[in-house]
Amino acid sequence: MKVRILVSFKESVLDPQGQTVKNALHTLGYDFIKDVRQGKVFEVELQGLSEDQAQKVIPEIADKVLANPIIEKFSWEVLSEGKKVSRN
Amino acid sequence: MKVRILVSFKESVLDPQGQTVKNALHTLGYDFIKDVRQGKVFEVELQGLSEDQAQKVIPEIADKVLANPIIEKFSWEVLSEGKKVSRN
Repeated sequence: MKVRILVSFKESVLDPQGQTVKNALHTLGYDFIKDVRQGKVFEVELQGLSEDQAQKVIPEIADKVLANPIIEKFSWEVLSEGKKVSRN
Repeated sequence: MKVRILVSFKESVLDPQGQTVKNALHTLGYDFIKDVRQGKVFEVELQGLSEDQAQKVIPEIADKVLANPIIEKFSWEVLSEGKKVSRN
């Protein structure tokens, strides 16, 4: 099973990388860009886990290893063939 | 309109960050992790663009600024309220 975990700063946290990208895009003439927030994405291949087990273990991994829960939030979704199931 | 752009290494490109995360997870006992690929995610807020215009401009921005097309690939989706439309 393949899952995608998205990690980004909480809304209240400044995102200087996103700001830099936004400014670069404005310099290039893309004035319609109102905001850019940058984050990380992890595509994780799991072996021998049921979806119920994944539901328990993915938030654990995200909280412990992938995200810093003080300043970051995460969401994840199962990437099955053609089908996406989102979770927050 | 809000869009999410995912940028990750092409399959043929080594991903040392992802490998490091995988090894860290194995060390913590998560042996069922078969593979981890790490990438970047950009959540971009667009103002005053139709979806047709976005379809033209988002791949342009991704190719020019957000991704390095030699080693990276991107996909994007429109994040409307509750509804997701994916594109590759």
